[in-house]
Amino acid sequence: MFRVLDEFYEWFHRRRLNNAYEVSRTPLEAMDGWQVDPGTGNIGHRSGKFFSVQGLDIRTDHRETAAWSQPIIVQPEIGILGIVVKVVDGEVHCLLQAKMEPGNVNLLQLSPTVQATRSNYTRVHRGSAVPYLEHFTEPRDGRAVVDVLQSEQGSWFLNKRNRNMIVEVTGDLPVGEDFCWLSLGQVAELLREDNLVNMDARTVLSGMPFFSAGGGVGLGGPEPGRDEQALHPVAGLLSWFTECKARYQLSRRTVPLAELPRWSLTGGEIRHDEQRHFSVVGVDVRATNREVASWSQPMLKPVDRGVIGFLGRRINGAFHVLVQARTEAGTHDVVEMAPTVSCIPANSDGMPPQFRPRFLDELVGEPNTIVDVVHSEEGGRFFHAENRYLVVDVGEDFDLDVPADYCWMTPEQLTGFVRYGNYVNVAARCLLTCLLGESTRLVAGARR
Amino acid sequence: MFRVLDEFYEWFHRRRLNNAYEVSRTPLEAMDGWQVDPGTGNIGHRSGKFFSVQGLDIRTDHRETAAWSQPIIVQPEIGILGIVVKVVDGEVHCLLQAKMEPGNVNLLQLSPTVQATRSNYTRVHRGSAVPYLEHFTEPRDGRAVVDVLQSEQGSWFLNKRNRNMIVEVTGDLPVGEDFCWLSLGQVAELLREDNLVNMDARTVLSGMPFFSAGGGVGLGGPEPGRDEQALHPVAGLLSWFTECKARYQLSRRTVPLAELPRWSLTGGEIRHDEQRHFSVVGVDVRATNREVASWSQPMLKPVDRGVIGFLGRRINGAFHVLVQARTEAGTHDVVEMAPTVSCIPANSDGMPPQFRPRFLDELVGEPNTIVDVVHSEEGGRFFHAENRYLVVDVGEDFDLDVPADYCWMTPEQLTGFVRYGNYVNVAARCLLTCLLGESTRLVAGARR
Repeated sequence: MFRVLDEFYEWFHRRRLNNAYEVSRTPLEAMDGWQVDPGTGNIGHRSGKFFSVQGLDIRTDHRETAAWSQPIIVQPEIGILGIVVKVVDGEVHCLLQAKMEPGNVNLLQLSPTVQATRSNYTRVHRGSAVPYLEHFTEPRDGRAVVDVLQSEQGSWFLNKRNRNMIVEVTGDLPVGEDFCWLSLGQVAELLREDNLVNMDARTVLSGMPFFSAGGGVGLGGPEPGRDEQALHPVAGLLSWFTECKARYQLSRRTVPLAELPRWSLTGGEIRHDEQRHFSVVGVDVRATNREVASWSQPMLKPVDRGVIGFLGRRINGAFHVLVQARTEAGTHDVVEMAPTVSCIPANSDGMPPQFRPRFLDELVGEPNTIVDVVHSEEGGRFFHAENRYLVVDVGEDFDLDVPADYCWMTPEQLTGFVRYGNYVNVAARCLLTCLLGESTRLVAGARR
Repeated sequence: MFRVLDEFYEWFHRRRLNNAYEVSRTPLEAMDGWQVDPGTGNIGHRSGKFFSVQGLDIRTDHRETAAWSQPIIVQPEIGILGIVVKVVDGEVHCLLQAKMEPGNVNLLQLSPTVQATRSNYTRVHRGSAVPYLEHFTEPRDGRAVVDVLQSEQGSWFLNKRNRNMIVEVTGDLPVGEDFCWLSLGQVAELLREDNLVNMDARTVLSGMPFFSAGGGVGLGGPEPGRDEQALHPVAGLLSWFTECKARYQLSRRTVPLAELPRWSLTGGEIRHDEQRHFSVVGVDVRATNREVASWSQPMLKPVDRGVIGFLGRRINGAFHVLVQARTEAGTHDVVEMAPTVSCIPANSDGMPPQFRPRFLDELVGEPNTIVDVVHSEEGGRFFHAENRYLVVDVGEDFDLDVPADYCWMTPEQLTGFVRYGNYVNVAARCLLTCLLGESTRLVAGARR
């Protein structure tokens, strides 16, 4: 364990030197092991495993446009994202891994103890090993504190889910050379740094009781979701969410990638005709400390940096964030709880005003920021997919009356919903985790 | 309101006399307004509305057989099942309706305040009215205490969901002639009577905090799901449930009804070749107090009475029930929490022993019953579908170690999960409601 973070940075620097790898772009048609189907244009691995990129037709009454189609990643299997934790001297510590992913801006980031696709972890039964996997499969060595199936990016994945787990151990564990223990307080510090704690670690950590870090409360602390000070009781929030699910419709069907209007395969990648949203690109990867020494794969590359943010304000003395019930192409069940704003602002450049995302101007124009940091989305599927994560305090003059798709709730209430799958989307979960170290400040008093 | 239940029975008797109707069987091919598609054999309404009966192919690794196919009701729209409640003299009262459904054994039963399909309640915007609907649609007159999308019978419905709502009002309401106020204590009494409180009322009531009736705690009472005395904390139960979801697979596709092996349309109904499971039959209905004076419709008719039951026992002084993670043909997401046993015993007559449902013998052989009553399933879709609802106390010698698909939890913990959709299946919810009046007895002390 690191007494001070300088020790961590020194360790992480050594990991970087020890992990030699290079990532280069390659045309989709030239990827080793993958093929673009001559009929459908769908992109899949020759083994039929891993994932595929297909076309999706979406119809909904809950977005700016009633119908559209787009490429989407189809990966029906459930992977495991798991963090081993241990209470030492009353403080929760997490076992994290320095792990390379080809889509990461800086390649090496801090990831969960285990980050395994189903193909990864079922391989175990044939003798090969994912380190620490025994804490996440039955019969388990440790106590599951958090264990829930969660959705991933609905704009880019169709119904993709991962099992998010936090498992508490009590005994000593051998610490592999790419692994380290960090206290939750140290993790909270590192979350303020750009592109260091990866998406998988952020989504798993969102299941922690919110006040764990700041309030010094351990894993046995109070249940999340208490709401004495909150604007709405939990029953009211559940009713708002159910109302949104019942009000809107979402239907999808997969279609051949080659037949998508406005998308085409040119120059070795699949692009939108107006260069909006994202492109599908191929990469070649060479690494020394991965199970496979080199491989190729397709990735989604957003056209620009996105913004993911909560408007927040104090209500009855308690800090609240404005949650949106949001529908995305791949959303499992019509809506999930999302940040106030999640978008790529460049997508609406040159579009009519109704396409300007609601509350974006209030978010980026607010100088009173509680969180302002750039993080990457999953570097195993997304290439240089950066988002600016923002939580701002808009102050107590901000209108409490909000449109029907939005609802004020406390971070503790939102954390309570994270325990149940498919309530809180990945952007909101990752943003919630960025508040990990802020609870003391939020509780301490009004910020203006 | 009724001072004593005799007054209720007198009122209900008058309702019965006032509601003249008759239900008769008719061949599927002869139903007015419906047709058997000459190509697929699927049964649908000529308007394309309401629901249809189709074939379903099921593949799963979580049942006695790896693959089967069967007829199933397809009804994707979300209806509303809602009960208006009001606290009078510190006690919760429910506004229930005496409502005829063609599949009910005794035709008239007590149903929720509002029981409306989407076609019913959207019609409101054109001027016609479902009584009391204004308490269940936005902007709502009343406070939503429970509001959640719940699954219905997974063996008979594909992905069917209804919105279960309990809305509290404070002012006076006009009481229509088929409606009455009953205290929760009175409802608990009536739940001990066979075929009186319908399925829709039972599923909605399951969202009530468990100790509302017996403990005298009102709607503002403690949150459900507290677990100081429970064998497993809620985090452990969630982990068990997630493990089951991740462990098993379930895939389905609809197929033409006419192509199902082992099922055939003969004598005006669709039957299983060995007369197991259920048949699809047609009925003609004539009634005087329904929106439409007469109609025909297909219904599912089980071959025999079923059994739905919890094994229960005291653990650490608290009563626990044994919950099964169960996969059915139409289950939304692989598994839901189900009773220990739910089956039609006659289905396994003459079958090899492995087809005898687990724990069935322990359930029906246990003399120490807490609940033992016969109720009907939804009389709008199921014809004379009766189940014997059982909760038994197997005593403290019963093994706490149970197979991986089963888990002990308290009724309060199970009620906590009812607030979140698609956790607790309809059989378990209806059975939980039968415990409504038993909380005092369960708390009072050991039963042997």
